[in-house]
Amino acid sequence: MKTMLLKKDEVRRLIGMTEVIGAVEEAYKAFNSDQVEQPDYIGMHLPSPRGEIDFKLGYYKANEVISMKASSGGFIDNPAAHGVPNGMGTILLFDARSGALICVMDGSLITGLRTGAAGAVSVKALARKNARTIASVGTGNQARMQIRAINEIMKIGEIHAWDRNPDTLSKYKTDIESEFGIPVIMANSKKEAVEQADILITTTRGKGSLVEADWVKPGTHIVAIGTDQHGKQELDPELFRNAKIIVDSISQCTEKGETWHPLNKNIIAKDDIHGEIGEVLLGRKPGRESDDEITIFDSTGMAIQDNTTAGKIYQNAIANNVGTFFQFFE
Amino acid sequence: MKTMLLKKDEVRRLIGMTEVIGAVEEAYKAFNSDQVEQPDYIGMHLPSPRGEIDFKLGYYKANEVISMKASSGGFIDNPAAHGVPNGMGTILLFDARSGALICVMDGSLITGLRTGAAGAVSVKALARKNARTIASVGTGNQARMQIRAINEIMKIGEIHAWDRNPDTLSKYKTDIESEFGIPVIMANSKKEAVEQADILITTTRGKGSLVEADWVKPGTHIVAIGTDQHGKQELDPELFRNAKIIVDSISQCTEKGETWHPLNKNIIAKDDIHGEIGEVLLGRKPGRESDDEITIFDSTGMAIQDNTTAGKIYQNAIANNVGTFFQFFE
Repeated sequence: MKTMLLKKDEVRRLIGMTEVIGAVEEAYKAFNSDQVEQPDYIGMHLPSPRGEIDFKLGYYKANEVISMKASSGGFIDNPAAHGVPNGMGTILLFDARSGALICVMDGSLITGLRTGAAGAVSVKALARKNARTIASVGTGNQARMQIRAINEIMKIGEIHAWDRNPDTLSKYKTDIESEFGIPVIMANSKKEAVEQADILITTTRGKGSLVEADWVKPGTHIVAIGTDQHGKQELDPELFRNAKIIVDSISQCTEKGETWHPLNKNIIAKDDIHGEIGEVLLGRKPGRESDDEITIFDSTGMAIQDNTTAGKIYQNAIANNVGTFFQFFE
Repeated sequence: MKTMLLKKDEVRRLIGMTEVIGAVEEAYKAFNSDQVEQPDYIGMHLPSPRGEIDFKLGYYKANEVISMKASSGGFIDNPAAHGVPNGMGTILLFDARSGALICVMDGSLITGLRTGAAGAVSVKALARKNARTIASVGTGNQARMQIRAINEIMKIGEIHAWDRNPDTLSKYKTDIESEFGIPVIMANSKKEAVEQADILITTTRGKGSLVEADWVKPGTHIVAIGTDQHGKQELDPELFRNAKIIVDSISQCTEKGETWHPLNKNIIAKDDIHGEIGEVLLGRKPGRESDDEITIFDSTGMAIQDNTTAGKIYQNAIANNVGTFFQFFE
């Protein structure tokens, strides 16, 4: 029995954003087609200045692949104290037909890639076809990943960006303009950025409302990325009152996504959630129905996204003879 | 950042049963000293003839090691259909100071080893000092592992063994007699075996009472290994009424161990559990207090046993320059 080992650089070379978008679409559709099992994840919180390690398990029945992603984050002293990044990841892939470990791959890129792709999938399904202007609240790594992904599926006219840290904002402008040639306007306030948005992306680690409801113009599509844990928040809950709410997973989003906040304040009821994005992609529920409606995509992130993305990387490695094989037992 | 890879053969050579017994004692003591975090495990049940895959996470604070064991079992068609064993395992070790993946080792031996060691630890702590005769109900791999471990810590006079399958029983006799030189008497009934026991070991996959209460003589120590899931059972719940009950983990044993059954039948209350074995090893609670009492050790198996055992193997690999290093990222 041989197990494939894949390094970070190999993972990077083995998949492009277009394929990740395809993998995430496949994941969402599978999730709403009884093709997925995802137990609650388990995690370990370590005392500050350390962060946490999470273990996310997913089974994709159609592919007969079980994935387990171990990912750490928030170990802020790591670079200085241990010479390693503040977050790392490892993905194990098992053949669900036998339980055999078929691959151990570096998993530090996949979360960023599949989360970026998630935003793009929602834009394809829910943004106005004539959307051109993006507002980005937050300008860190995931904000860039969102642009990288959305840039694959539409023509972005300009980006109005805001960050609480002016240096980060200015670096984002330089990087995005040089990588994609998309003009970035540095907003003086969140309001100034949000008011311009055809598509609003929030990717902060915010723990309180950052975007007020009356800043958002009709027809905006909101990609709510940052809130994936209880305690986090980016949007004014009032935004949900008249919006079309689409989530990746109703059970996750009502428990720890952005959607928890308006539910908690009784601004909406659970029945007001329009549906899961897989249902929209499968054509079981309509996506955007008018140019005036505000659509919100609440993404908490699912193990099946890691599963389909890592599965694709593994297939590409086989096809291209990339990777190292190790025999854990005879 | 380099990660150590260890093959099954290396794992086998890197640790002996005496060290595993030490590691399991350390695990039990750590568990009762606020040195352990063990979230509920997550698992995936697959349709027959496949089995299940479990993921067990443990954090040993004193060592700053986090372990994750993925183990599969019950894939009965594996040898014929896929050329792999019906159960396999992989253990990941993380440095809890940084979250870095320090080792990926084959984990197919560790569950057997640490479970055998658990029995021996309980015998040391709870059996009569003059115990000589073992009864073994069940004669599979784990039954042998129990003898291998107990043989390290006491002189076994003879073994009275029973198995529902006569061929398995006969093979057990041949193997044990040749490996250890301990005489094995093949019992014609469970009763015949149990009545002889100073130490009774149950290691079946039983799903109903196998051992009646009035077969067990005063002073017997019972090592109850088989029941680690809801639905399994090996002992007459009446046995618990007047016995001294010691468990590995109260929360696990009351939920899915042998102890669940007498609780469910109101034969005992939770307060009748004498304690966790770590409390006995730490001297916080007495072990055996007379030659007449019946002691029951209910073992469901804990992630921290995997953690300390795998941690020892990893340390031995470093000390002996064994293992292959792989760089998942620069």
